[in-house]
Amino acid sequence: MTSNPSQKAIRSATDWPVNAWYVAAASDEVGTSVLGRRICGLPVAMFRAADGVVAAMEDFCPHRGAPLSLGFVRDGQLVCGYHGLAAECTGRVASMPGQRVGGFPRIRSFAVVERFGFIWLWPGDPDFADPGKLPQLEWADSPDWAYGGSRFHVLCDYRLMIDNLMDLTHETYVHGSSIGQKEIDEAPVKTRKIGQNIITSRFMDRVKAPPFWRMALSGVGLPQDEAVDRWQICRFSLPSSVMIEVGVALAGRGGYDAPDNVKVSSIVVDFMTPETEKSHHYFWGMARKFAVDDPLLTDKIRDGQFQIFREDLEVLERQQANLDSDQGRRLLLLNIDAGGARSREMIEAAITKETLGNPTPGNEHPLGSDRDRMSR
Amino acid sequence: MTSNPSQKAIRSATDWPVNAWYVAAASDEVGTSVLGRRICGLPVAMFRAADGVVAAMEDFCPHRGAPLSLGFVRDGQLVCGYHGLAAECTGRVASMPGQRVGGFPRIRSFAVVERFGFIWLWPGDPDFADPGKLPQLEWADSPDWAYGGSRFHVLCDYRLMIDNLMDLTHETYVHGSSIGQKEIDEAPVKTRKIGQNIITSRFMDRVKAPPFWRMALSGVGLPQDEAVDRWQICRFSLPSSVMIEVGVALAGRGGYDAPDNVKVSSIVVDFMTPETEKSHHYFWGMARKFAVDDPLLTDKIRDGQFQIFREDLEVLERQQANLDSDQGRRLLLLNIDAGGARSREMIEAAITKETLGNPTPGNEHPLGSDRDRMSR
Amino acid sequence: MTSNPSQKAIRSATDWPVNAWYVAAASDEVGTSVLGRRICGLPVAMFRAADGVVAAMEDFCPHRGAPLSLGFVRDGQLVCGYHGLAAECTGRVASMPGQRVGGFPRIRSFAVVERFGFIWLWPGDPDFADPGKLPQLEWADSPDWAYGGSRFHVLCDYRLMIDNLMDLTHETYVHGSSIGQKEIDEAPVKTRKIGQNIITSRFMDRVKAPPFWRMALSGVGLPQDEAVDRWQICRFSLPSSVMIEVGVALAGRGGYDAPDNVKVSSIVVDFMTPETEKSHHYFWGMARKFAVDDPLLTDKIRDGQFQIFREDLEVLERQQANLDSDQGRRLLLLNIDAGGARSREMIEAAITKETLGNPTPGNEHPLGSDRDRMSR
Repeated sequence: MTSNPSQKAIRSATDWPVNAWYVAAASDEVGTSVLGRRICGLPVAMFRAADGVVAAMEDFCPHRGAPLSLGFVRDGQLVCGYHGLAAECTGRVASMPGQRVGGFPRIRSFAVVERFGFIWLWPGDPDFADPGKLPQLEWADSPDWAYGGSRFHVLCDYRLMIDNLMDLTHETYVHGSSIGQKEIDEAPVKTRKIGQNIITSRFMDRVKAPPFWRMALSGVGLPQDEAVDRWQICRFSLPSSVMIEVGVALAGRGGYDAPDNVKVSSIVVDFMTPETEKSHHYFWGMARKFAVDDPLLTDKIRDGQFQIFREDLEVLERQQANLDSDQGRRLLLLNIDAGGARSREMIEAAITKETLGNPTPGNEHPLGSDRDRMSR
Repeated sequence: MTSNPSQKAIRSATDWPVNAWYVAAASDEVGTSVLGRRICGLPVAMFRAADGVVAAMEDFCPHRGAPLSLGFVRDGQLVCGYHGLAAECTGRVASMPGQRVGGFPRIRSFAVVERFGFIWLWPGDPDFADPGKLPQLEWADSPDWAYGGSRFHVLCDYRLMIDNLMDLTHETYVHGSSIGQKEIDEAPVKTRKIGQNIITSRFMDRVKAPPFWRMALSGVGLPQDEAVDRWQICRFSLPSSVMIEVGVALAGRGGYDAPDNVKVSSIVVDFMTPETEKSHHYFWGMARKFAVDDPLLTDKIRDGQFQIFREDLEVLERQQANLDSDQGRRLLLLNIDAGGARSREMIEAAITKETLGNPTPGNEHPLGSDRDRMSR
Repeated sequence: MTSNPSQKAIRSATDWPVNAWYVAAASDEVGTSVLGRRICGLPVAMFRAADGVVAAMEDFCPHRGAPLSLGFVRDGQLVCGYHGLAAECTGRVASMPGQRVGGFPRIRSFAVVERFGFIWLWPGDPDFADPGKLPQLEWADSPDWAYGGSRFHVLCDYRLMIDNLMDLTHETYVHGSSIGQKEIDEAPVKTRKIGQNIITSRFMDRVKAPPFWRMALSGVGLPQDEAVDRWQICRFSLPSSVMIEVGVALAGRGGYDAPDNVKVSSIVVDFMTPETEKSHHYFWGMARKFAVDDPLLTDKIRDGQFQIFREDLEVLERQQANLDSDQGRRLLLLNIDAGGARSREMIEAAITKETLGNPTPGNEHPLGSDRDRMSR
């Protein structure tokens, strides 16, 4: 977490902010072996030191360039699997067989924090890596909630996934057999900026519950064939997450504000971590407040999400290919796109601020309104 | 078929004429679902409207760029599978959930005609898309003929396939076990331009019938071990087809002009439709005038062609790779190459004419003699 | 072996010397069929003429660019599989069906020699291709030695493999379960230039034999659990081979110079032939002086080497990918890297000499000391 003045200057990226916390892995992905993964364009080797604390450094041995993630952990140090260079968590080279390593350059290390079941990495300047800036995930450490999730590697710009999640109109078309329903695209959508979030909400009163929610109603002993009030509240936060409050309540009982015993609700969790300009790691899951002691239900929901999100992948990857083959073409920007559009504006503003070179810790990001640049 | 003035200007291609009819699909490839295919460099979505009439438009939703071919047909309109934009056959956007679509740009549509068991697409200016310019395929709609065929996706410039088909010398080498025979490369070949066709013909008198023709002779009750007179007449037409009249007659009975009861003959059908500069869709088949009521024979011939044409694929794709790795190298141009060479001249002239901007409907293409440009 | 003045000028490569003998294939790879392989960036077709003598020419038919390696050998000539052009071993076109070939350009041919069980190819000017410059391989044609080996296609610069082989420190890390042992990286390494070789040697006295050598000791009836003196002497020669004398002797009996009856030793044979700038053909094997009449042991050793060398492949290919993603980054150059570094200097000097245009036969290459250019 401490600054490392000897490492090379942090370059500003043009496709994502770098002074921010990104989900780099789920906690259980980093065990006794080393995990190599490209995060925000950077090759990263993650491992657990002897005390179980996660460390991350550039996945590039300064000796001959071999990936450190092919190595192993010994006494809390990461040992290169080619010639045995051993580095401390800080990136300092501790030893190498037959060598004096005092003059060896330090390996670039990254600020990482493990919290909420994820490993969070700050690709930018470690001086600004304040754990206080991590998002607050109420559902993650509370016995009132259950969580299940997984990860996809997606061959498209992470912002196409944000567009997707900030406009659930697509559910009617892409997910017709599970969570989509005709009323979604008939209900008006409202997009606002509240604090540092972009929020898109949609409320559907007195509709028939789609299959996913019928299963959930049934799971908590509520009737699944009665009319329900349904809601979807998508919340984008920098650098790249979308939390979606979703649920249904028996119709006329207060909807979103109905008492717990007549509704089922959950939060769809989405972290999009850029890998390259045209690919990202998509960490998804669902946190729910009902039937939290039913691990079989957790598995069932995760399987369902797996099927649903997989339907998005083909559309998004083919959309990316289409955009690649006709670069520069302008797309439409409709009211339903406002959620994605304003989220992108927020990202753009954060990038611009970093590029201008003033990432003072604690500063808030002023939001620009330059929609022109935002063509996809 | 009507002009669409609002769509963007038709760019001239440099590798193929665009104001021409190309085979885009076999009729049975387009059913209730939408077919996405790149034709002459353009992404195309083809579908059947309610009346069964085939329509084609750009495979790119103007909203967010998703491929329309991932969508579906509803009430004769093509509906995008992402957010539900619905377009008429003409490319006019008819509706979208929650949107006023009056100001939406029109989707580029293509002139298409279904005829002879194929779907023909005109990639260029729809104003010039005259169905009267379709080729006349006498074998396609006649009870005197039987037809069977299929399609290959080939990773080479479509013109390498034209070269291949306009010079059957290669049969001796590539197809030695089926249709090749030593006499092919010993017989002189003659290339002429007749009207708008380049014709390469070769006649082999008193030869032994190769395996394919022995099978055919046997199939109509003729002796398969007698000497035969054999012919191959290759006919190139713009933009990119080669029809090859092939056959054998019992020797000395008139050859090509022998009466039907002492010969077997057929037409090898080849439509090469560019996909990209280095790949094409190859629609191939055989139309025959003998044993037309024998569908098992149709299958057997198609299987045989499949095996034979597959032998060409490796040679052609490796040839393309070789040419790619040493660009600009000049090749030889021999008498046997005249068929391909003159066909390429005809293509070049058509492209030049389009590039000069004078594609007046009904005009004929003057043939240039600039062989120098024709190095492959 | 004779010069071919009509062929195009030999371009100097910038990644390898061209006026040198490279292993192009093992003898048994070229039989009755034609072998196509890219050698030093050049597409090469190798075949055996009627007398069994190996010939090599460019794998590119001058007619239409098809690969000649798809063809076949007839009467000692290489016949193109597309249209039947037939070439003599010298590259002269001998015939083509229906053509007068007197004016046909000659196909570029390469000097090749078959010796020591390999086919050696000289990619540069055939005028300088002196068989006297072939390396002397004492183990190859002697009844006192047995040899077994094979080939890998490796996706990295051939020089990364030279680095690997000229610094066996990596054995401790990459090959811990077979030939690696802790004492390797503790023993000092010494690098010298002797004549036209770079030699890196390491001697480990009174160590425990690692699994491979225990197997070898056991195979000749020596105790496998006694302390041994172990040695590794790596010898690089231009253009790109590393011969490694390896062995163990019962401790205190003279080590490398111990009598034959108390030691086992062999030569690890490595020829790295560039394919492209980022890939090479790796011919590897082991020549041994013990148990030479035991073909089962030959197989067993080859299987063992196969497993060991395969461990190197992942490291090297991932190292190449890492270097590619951060080009221009400088690596460390340590004492253990001296063997690879000085070998690269020798390669660089040979390339420079060729580039300056003075490859006089018989000249020796002066060694530059410009280490700065040698960053990988």
